[in-house]
Amino acid sequence: MLRSPIKHCRNCGAAVVYRVPDDGDTRERAVCPACDTIHYENPLNVVGTVPHWGDRVLLCKRNIEPRWGKWTLPAGFMELGESTAEGAARETVEEAGAHIAMEDLFTVLSVPRVGQVHLFYRARLLSDHFAPGHETIEAQLFTESEIPWDEIAFRTVRETLLCYFADRRAGRFEVHSLVIT
Amino acid sequence: MLRSPIKHCRNCGAAVVYRVPDDGDTRERAVCPACDTIHYENPLNVVGTVPHWGDRVLLCKRNIEPRWGKWTLPAGFMELGESTAEGAARETVEEAGAHIAMEDLFTVLSVPRVGQVHLFYRARLLSDHFAPGHETIEAQLFTESEIPWDEIAFRTVRETLLCYFADRRAGRFEVHSLVIT
Repeated sequence: MLRSPIKHCRNCGAAVVYRVPDDGDTRERAVCPACDTIHYENPLNVVGTVPHWGDRVLLCKRNIEPRWGKWTLPAGFMELGESTAEGAARETVEEAGAHIAMEDLFTVLSVPRVGQVHLFYRARLLSDHFAPGHETIEAQLFTESEIPWDEIAFRTVRETLLCYFADRRAGRFEVHSLVIT
Repeated sequence: MLRSPIKHCRNCGAAVVYRVPDDGDTRERAVCPACDTIHYENPLNVVGTVPHWGDRVLLCKRNIEPRWGKWTLPAGFMELGESTAEGAARETVEEAGAHIAMEDLFTVLSVPRVGQVHLFYRARLLSDHFAPGHETIEAQLFTESEIPWDEIAFRTVRETLLCYFADRRAGRFEVHSLVIT
């Protein structure tokens, strides 16, 4: 999931050099020796939902790499011009064709190893009919005991599901902030 | 705060074209006609803290643009390889030279107009001595009534301060998720 290194300047196309800029920065950046553009690389946000229907949650079987064939909550990279909640809702429609009412922010999970932050919202399903997009093999509802725990695509999805069912049992949903090492 | 458009491929330096890729994507991306690299641009995270000392919070007077001379909570762009909390703590040390004990996630604010998400943590100050970095003119503690509300640098900082003092009065801190339009 890590991006390939920057080789050329996005502004002028010259080959960049990696060095600490002269502006008080403390990290090496890709700097253009021709036009002085400094290229910053920063973590990406992945936004998604925990769509629920009674005591069941919706999982999607991935039709894309990485983790083809594994189960995930609907989620994807946040885009420019949208809020975290808007992105989470968009991904839920794109990947599952689900009709939802967005609820509160539920988990915020940092994954420093891959430079990502995953944010999941709870979402109430308005129908149990789904229309999976091309990134999804099938969309299916699972109770806690039916969840294919050994076939979950990502640690952040697993942790979010564990938090969801624990909070559901406790009768009270909180926001969970976690780090996946 | 918006980035300039991508003109050249980061991989090979050729001039890019903006078009919808052929992989099922629905958005225009900068695509390289020479090596087929697709360049994605996504929102950036800004991470910071609400450092508190008794009934006062720490603000920093900005020594950099934008908003030079305005007051802000210590915060800055999240870097690769760190968690949101680690980034928030780092910025607090860099901008204020403050000694803190990190507490819980407090606000998550989407700012779709500039493609950013701001995340603030509460942080207990361990000392009221500060050593501002080069990005800060001065660091100062303020009670709620002393806050220079008309001189706050960013809407996300203002909203976070409003949430902080409201929760403090209520005797209970929650996580607040907001959109700044």
